[in-house]
Amino acid sequence: MNIKDYCYDGDRKFSPKNFNTADTAEYKKKRDGSVRLMENLRKMASLQDKLYAENKESVLIIFQAMDAAGKDSAIKNVMSGMNPHGVSVHDFKSPSSEELEHDYLWRANRALPERGNIGIFNRSYYEDVLVVKVRQLHRFNLPSRCVDDDIFKRRYRQINDYERYLYENGVRIIKLFLNISKDEQKARFLARIENQEKNWKFSDSDIKERTLWDQYQTAYKEAINATSTSYAPWYVIPADKKWFSRVLISEIIVNVLEDIKPQYPVLSKEATALLSEHRQQLLNE
Amino acid sequence: MNIKDYCYDGDRKFSPKNFNTADTAEYKKKRDGSVRLMENLRKMASLQDKLYAENKESVLIIFQAMDAAGKDSAIKNVMSGMNPHGVSVHDFKSPSSEELEHDYLWRANRALPERGNIGIFNRSYYEDVLVVKVRQLHRFNLPSRCVDDDIFKRRYRQINDYERYLYENGVRIIKLFLNISKDEQKARFLARIENQEKNWKFSDSDIKERTLWDQYQTAYKEAINATSTSYAPWYVIPADKKWFSRVLISEIIVNVLEDIKPQYPVLSKEATALLSEHRQQLLNE
Repeated sequence: MNIKDYCYDGDRKFSPKNFNTADTAEYKKKRDGSVRLMENLRKMASLQDKLYAENKESVLIIFQAMDAAGKDSAIKNVMSGMNPHGVSVHDFKSPSSEELEHDYLWRANRALPERGNIGIFNRSYYEDVLVVKVRQLHRFNLPSRCVDDDIFKRRYRQINDYERYLYENGVRIIKLFLNISKDEQKARFLARIENQEKNWKFSDSDIKERTLWDQYQTAYKEAINATSTSYAPWYVIPADKKWFSRVLISEIIVNVLEDIKPQYPVLSKEATALLSEHRQQLLNE
Repeated sequence: MNIKDYCYDGDRKFSPKNFNTADTAEYKKKRDGSVRLMENLRKMASLQDKLYAENKESVLIIFQAMDAAGKDSAIKNVMSGMNPHGVSVHDFKSPSSEELEHDYLWRANRALPERGNIGIFNRSYYEDVLVVKVRQLHRFNLPSRCVDDDIFKRRYRQINDYERYLYENGVRIIKLFLNISKDEQKARFLARIENQEKNWKFSDSDIKERTLWDQYQTAYKEAINATSTSYAPWYVIPADKKWFSRVLISEIIVNVLEDIKPQYPVLSKEATALLSEHRQQLLNE
């Protein structure tokens, strides 16, 4: 498995039509991938510990997907090995009235991870060029001078500027689009309806959004192609096989953490000398 | 008085050496300006009421200056006529430990005014290209990959991107640099030391910063010239005469509010019909 095969950093275009959502790379069965997943989770835990100790870079992981693509279960299964002290998950639901009183990046900015931390956005400001675009929700709050046919082009540029700013100020951004097929969504919706224990996961609005499938696919395609950059690349994750999407996601996170090369801070000579003093003092007690 | 004379929107350069900090335009004495100031305060109060009712645009007023240039008294004297319901003032002091755990725009973003509101920043993120640059404070928290000789050039660009984003999303930005002379600062410092009631306004660090006067002047000049844009122009305010700086500031704020042309919302036909119904219902009680 080469994560570059799934990476869009501006060099090539993402085309939903040519994308195999059922891809599992060289792994044939869930069992084949699980060894790799376990390895990756161990590496992640160790690297996170150093990231937290060094307290310099933070990591922002953005999950975007159609309903039932497996965002929640990916977060649960890939991130559970981490120390929750340095990890936060933020859900982006319909904006609150306070959030609507501000620009669309305002609520995202408040939720950014601190230095040394890993922040997970379950959905994100990308909703402002996805559901907002498909449902034309941007017309409600903005002054009329801000609303014209180019608004989403401007938003792509604004998002690129924002992500570049974050990258330049110590935030590593990993953007994951969990890409499922329409058939697989149907199967998962049916499971949620037919299995009582899964009923709570299903809502009427899921069906309504499904009727806009093509519009969403176009919105995703345009957003991903307009915001694929070297400093904040998109990874499109084949998501029909949940087990494979988890292996791939863990692989990507390990790769970014290894690239950061976090190190436990090394004390200065003075601080080391002071530690020796403290040690002696304790021993002399 | 023509506010264009004090405006830097990218067309020309600001040069501290050629700037008359004691300028008072056509006004000779405080009394001459006070009529105009009162007129402007009345206009501001009326326009603010509409801005708040319309709930579309917000206004961000940034005050930057050397110590004792009159920021606090300008805020007090120019903004006091406004309804505090729609006005907030945010002081940017030394960043807290929580703020230092984030990128430098993070705390500014949290303090942005809501739609329909006027937000005043008493100092701002510009400190991150002023005191931070003069005192080289940026070296402490950032990952080493983010720190090199171009960091402030990048910050100017980041700030321009940020302000353009805000402008495009319904925020009007007014940036005011209250420019006093070194002699006038000396006189005001002496007054703060010699007048017991003003002692609380003086701190040791003020004297230390004054020894870096030239470095600060250079930092202001570079920051202003790099961030003078059509969407977020700088106004350089002659501040040796406090009374004149207030007239000019009120003039600028009125100008921006008039440009916004805020209107009380007009109800739809349906809503007007509903009001008539409610009226009849009340009368029939």
